Amino acid sequence: MIELSDTTLRDGAQAEGISFSVSDKIQIISALDELGIRWIEAGSPGINPADFELFRLLQSKPALRRSSLLAFGPTCRPGTSPADDENLKKLAGCGADGVVLFGKCSLPLVSHVLHCTPDENLRMIRDSVSYLKQHHQIVWFDAEHFFDGFADHQDYALSALAAAAEGGADRIILCDTRGSMLPDEIRRIVAAARSSCAIPLGIHCHNDCGLAVSNSIEAVQAGCTLVQGTIGGIGERCGNANLCTIIPVLSLKMGLKCIPTDKLPRLTHLSRKIFEIMNIVPDETSPFIGNSAFAHKAGVHIDGIMKDPESYEQINPESVGNQRRFLLSDQVGKAGVYARLGRFLPDLNRDSSEISRILQKLKEMETAGYTYENADSSFELLALDTLGRRPRYFEVVDYHVLCQSNPLESGNLPSAQAYLKINVNGKEEINAAEGDGPVNALDLALRKTLSLFFPSVSHMSLKDFKVRVLNAKGTASLVRVSIESSDGEHIWNTVGVSENIIEACLKALIDSVDYMLTKYVPPHEIYQAFDFSGSGQPVSSLNVRGGK
Amino acid sequence: MIELSDTTLRDGAQAEGISFSVSDKIQIISALDELGIRWIEAGSPGINPADFELFRLLQSKPALRRSSLLAFGPTCRPGTSPADDENLKKLAGCGADGVVLFGKCSLPLVSHVLHCTPDENLRMIRDSVSYLKQHHQIVWFDAEHFFDGFADHQDYALSALAAAAEGGADRIILCDTRGSMLPDEIRRIVAAARSSCAIPLGIHCHNDCGLAVSNSIEAVQAGCTLVQGTIGGIGERCGNANLCTIIPVLSLKMGLKCIPTDKLPRLTHLSRKIFEIMNIVPDETSPFIGNSAFAHKAGVHIDGIMKDPESYEQINPESVGNQRRFLLSDQVGKAGVYARLGRFLPDLNRDSSEISRILQKLKEMETAGYTYENADSSFELLALDTLGRRPRYFEVVDYHVLCQSNPLESGNLPSAQAYLKINVNGKEEINAAEGDGPVNALDLALRKTLSLFFPSVSHMSLKDFKVRVLNAKGTASLVRVSIESSDGEHIWNTVGVSENIIEACLKALIDSVDYMLTKYVPPHEIYQAFDFSGSGQPVSSLNVRGGK
Repeated sequence: MIELSDTTLRDGAQAEGISFSVSDKIQIISALDELGIRWIEAGSPGINPADFELFRLLQSKPALRRSSLLAFGPTCRPGTSPADDENLKKLAGCGADGVVLFGKCSLPLVSHVLHCTPDENLRMIRDSVSYLKQHHQIVWFDAEHFFDGFADHQDYALSALAAAAEGGADRIILCDTRGSMLPDEIRRIVAAARSSCAIPLGIHCHNDCGLAVSNSIEAVQAGCTLVQGTIGGIGERCGNANLCTIIPVLSLKMGLKCIPTDKLPRLTHLSRKIFEIMNIVPDETSPFIGNSAFAHKAGVHIDGIMKDPESYEQINPESVGNQRRFLLSDQVGKAGVYARLGRFLPDLNRDSSEISRILQKLKEMETAGYTYENADSSFELLALDTLGRRPRYFEVVDYHVLCQSNPLESGNLPSAQAYLKINVNGKEEINAAEGDGPVNALDLALRKTLSLFFPSVSHMSLKDFKVRVLNAKGTASLVRVSIESSDGEHIWNTVGVSENIIEACLKALIDSVDYMLTKYVPPHEIYQAFDFSGSGQPVSSLNVRGGK
Repeated sequence: MIELSDTTLRDGAQAEGISFSVSDKIQIISALDELGIRWIEAGSPGINPADFELFRLLQSKPALRRSSLLAFGPTCRPGTSPADDENLKKLAGCGADGVVLFGKCSLPLVSHVLHCTPDENLRMIRDSVSYLKQHHQIVWFDAEHFFDGFADHQDYALSALAAAAEGGADRIILCDTRGSMLPDEIRRIVAAARSSCAIPLGIHCHNDCGLAVSNSIEAVQAGCTLVQGTIGGIGERCGNANLCTIIPVLSLKMGLKCIPTDKLPRLTHLSRKIFEIMNIVPDETSPFIGNSAFAHKAGVHIDGIMKDPESYEQINPESVGNQRRFLLSDQVGKAGVYARLGRFLPDLNRDSSEISRILQKLKEMETAGYTYENADSSFELLALDTLGRRPRYFEVVDYHVLCQSNPLESGNLPSAQAYLKINVNGKEEINAAEGDGPVNALDLALRKTLSLFFPSVSHMSLKDFKVRVLNAKGTASLVRVSIESSDGEHIWNTVGVSENIIEACLKALIDSVDYMLTKYVPPHEIYQAFDFSGSGQPVSSLNVRGGK
């Protein structure tokens, strides 16, 4: 059994581009509790008033099921008593389940940064821990710069641990604060700490050498029983040890329990939920939970996986809640295209000329800047189009979008208008909408106009909208727009590419509506719009709903 | 001395979202050669016609200075002779400096995937290596699935290495193909291979457990003398071992030479250049070369760094060509703002109320979605604005941007027009431009109009343009636009935020032109535009050029 301590909300908040509101923190705490993380370092209430408020708020919330909340802060300052220290007084009364106190373990830094004697630093550690033990059942000592300090002067580093132990610390966390240690040094120094100190030891690694995960594992093998890290490995500089990697390695590769067994399949979902709250784009190549972690592209790999999944997968993707994907690219070959389309178009044969034509079209579109790796729906439509079987429910005959400067005194008036003319089976309809910016106005106008023909379109909404500049040619760059749509029940993804962002967005929107009409809209609505008593023209082209 | 082999162009090309043109590959080879990488695996000419063409083209180019080019491909197939194998014949005549042949070392995979006897697989390895040795001085054997194979049936895995040795292989690369090994397994299995095999061994690790870098290091410590990896760690699934991390670890932390010593300070620049050719956004938190690798945000860290850089930096950033950065965020405090502005506004005092006001304004803007971490120029203008010292060279009085559908038969006509009215010191000027999309049209109109007043603006160009959707609210999301501008001599970065992408872009453009006029345009041009004989009004506000 290895204890986990998450410091996403504390050390993670020191990452570039990250900042948490109190509401963000509460949502993340709830997700970590659901995952079954034992300890959560939630903030520094002694220094940061927002964190003090956070701990106050959390006391009025229902108790967490599995996690305990820790507050973080420094020891008292040189020459002062803990009882007179504003930070320690706030930590004493902050309402957390426990406190993590950090102090220096490196002799040179005690003199260069703290400007006090070595003994005074030990006194500060001992007295601060001892003072907080009077107010909290749980007090940990975070041994800052422990490994560097040990390498420089090992007796002093160990005496800092001893001071914390004398003060009554319940855990001591050994920190590689600069992320400078190699695995063999971690093994050696943890073993030394282990044999000099009777208190349970934890490990806190940084990733400045790309070794935070492996150093954490080495520390566990050398005797640490607690691992500290962050979701996604976010943190100061190159980040902290990534718990999303460490959890499956401990659980699946080393047979060490660290979260409840039934929670492991929730890892991918819960970590992505936390990335969403943090508003960061998750690293797609992240081990275990990344979108690419079980994605296969090379033809020889896809062939191997289809014969024996273990050939190119070390674990079953579902054990961590992720899934296998076969990527669509010119490397994928016919087997990959077939693997993706087989369920959607079951009448296609793997070795048919149709599959070759779709592969050829895929390569052309990739050359033009498209990517279908995350736009399954656009790819299915592309396949239908290539085979001459894509239904054309509507045509955008013409559009104009107008944006103008929004004088300050006008407040938040919509700043863009779109006008749009649509043809559905020979009937033209013209309409207009205004919105926050040109893309929003065009989107609203398109859905407003189409709802007149297909009422279900009014239930459609855009969940996410991404813009990627493909080639840096200043403002004339090629732009790829990816959108995620929903009708409340299903979610689907489409893509559009153009030098004109409006045009790129319109392409992705047209695909999105076409896909919804093809797959999710009740047939009677389509029939009604097309007035089948009369023409009947699109009967064959609409007959694509066989696939699930 | 450790040899490095780069497989960015081969295994890296199997990463999701990556594809290389022949021209990309040639540029990347040139950058790797400049960095002093000994071996470059450039492609699979036996399978991929574009790679065959690449090697043909490379023969007509000037010789590389430090690197040798390797071609990659599989052994012959079961029941066939190498001399009849199309792939091997192409490898024999491809013109590479050497060949890397891959073959299976795992007993279960030989039967499940190759469907041949264990002995036949050994025969294929031995005969294929031996055949290619007749045509190439250098032939390596890539021992696919070696570690998994060893764990399953160690005698067979070692007999595959022996077969390659009998064929005459010059190096044997031990592959953790599924990325499934833990560091202690790597140590044990490399040591066993080392004692059973007399040929120099290399290591090829995947990152599926987040351990590719540490496993490569363990392998070196256990006797491998060659490390294979990719720039940025790109590769199938979770990627390969990241050479950008391994190079500094070997050179600076382990004292093992792997590239020429004078090339190490080129690492950050050359790796970013390769990311640009690959058209991928580099991971900002990447060890050593990442934009955040030496970025400090927490107040206590910035304070520590200013007292002793070694307190929070394991190496000097300049040794790998990177640089220290103090981040601007509400965590940074007054010391951080002062550290960033001191050179630009030398008259400001660290503890002045001006610094507090700028910090306050910074926090407000961050709440509104701005980030200045990569927009120094916008931040300097924000600071001037907060102090009432920002010069206002011009005002955008009004603009309209119009986009319309571009009928297919019209070809590539510009699809957007922008009209703009500008006021410079009381003189109004109205002008218009058309472009590829609304942002391009507005950009062209703004610079066209301003050039009439400030001729230097016509030399300004936009180098890069990035769009980030901040909150996913469909097409009404808040959008942040970052642009990088240049006048041919200097480069500067600005930012704008709005729900309207046009407005966000205009804000970033206005900052960009203002910054150029403030810092880089000859004073006489400004004086002329403002007709100082007459009004003279902006004299004091223009007096901000003191800082360098």
